[in-house]
Amino acid sequence: MRKVIFGGANSLDNYIARPDDSVDWLMWGDEAAELMKGMWSRFDTIVMGRKTYEAGKKLAPEGGANPYKGIRTVVFSRTLTPENEPDVELVASDPGEFVHELKTDTGKDICVMGGGELGKTLLEAGVVDEIGFNIHPVLLGQGIPLFHGMKRQIDLELLECRPFKNGCVYVNYRVKN
Amino acid sequence: MRKVIFGGANSLDNYIARPDDSVDWLMWGDEAAELMKGMWSRFDTIVMGRKTYEAGKKLAPEGGANPYKGIRTVVFSRTLTPENEPDVELVASDPGEFVHELKTDTGKDICVMGGGELGKTLLEAGVVDEIGFNIHPVLLGQGIPLFHGMKRQIDLELLECRPFKNGCVYVNYRVKN
Repeated sequence: MRKVIFGGANSLDNYIARPDDSVDWLMWGDEAAELMKGMWSRFDTIVMGRKTYEAGKKLAPEGGANPYKGIRTVVFSRTLTPENEPDVELVASDPGEFVHELKTDTGKDICVMGGGELGKTLLEAGVVDEIGFNIHPVLLGQGIPLFHGMKRQIDLELLECRPFKNGCVYVNYRVKN
Repeated sequence: MRKVIFGGANSLDNYIARPDDSVDWLMWGDEAAELMKGMWSRFDTIVMGRKTYEAGKKLAPEGGANPYKGIRTVVFSRTLTPENEPDVELVASDPGEFVHELKTDTGKDICVMGGGELGKTLLEAGVVDEIGFNIHPVLLGQGIPLFHGMKRQIDLELLECRPFKNGCVYVNYRVKN
């Protein structure tokens, strides 16, 4: 079965972006580039919530176009319309059930992008297989949280821990569903 | 000058205890014991907030006595009274100023125990020199947060990253004050 990976980058104090969605604090380098290259070759589908999608569009160089062209992109939203978002697949049904179905299709792995709210929904639904985050050496103090409160505890198994020269620590866990 | 270390154990989702203060999810082992032994030899003073002190007393084997006997123990509180807490040094003045003064005394390093509220106050006051946490492989879902919202960003430098056999990852940072 295809695996679902909840991944991205965070600050040590559990934020994925500043309150205005900016990610100017992200650190890049050879090691992060290599990690990303390896990651992206695993996936042929990404899923995200509306807020993450709209934050990504703001950052995209073309300004407004889907920054994830060439990969199946699912956006969970009950308000966006297909006419305005022709490059992505809009899904208004329950994200947990949709991703559960998606996992039984043939294909490569599925990446859950950024948003902590969708992450929480999918973790609670028990459909996430791995959690992989690049912990940045900073306390932002304020921002959009990575992990939200959840109804239950989720145990993890550490698969990999890779410190980078720039002070980031990449950790990857298997979710014990 | 003596260094101030904010340290302890946390879950991947930024909690130091369950909502009822319990820490039954903490994992012990040879590696954690060795780490703790090395840590404690650095310190001759610990500082904590009232809530952390009272949570520690609940867990102490003697039931009610100071669990940190033999080490200078400062508890910040404006409500506790010396008659009831003879084993500790109660301080009602500003924690940031008190710790700033404490650093100029002669002695070994100073450990800030647990509480995220005191950690926030001391980080904002610019008196914390290191942050060292043993990240546990679990999402608790609910609990007492390690890092609270702060008025400013704090940049860190990774000093050490040590993955344990049991899946914990110990990270230690220098605070760039």
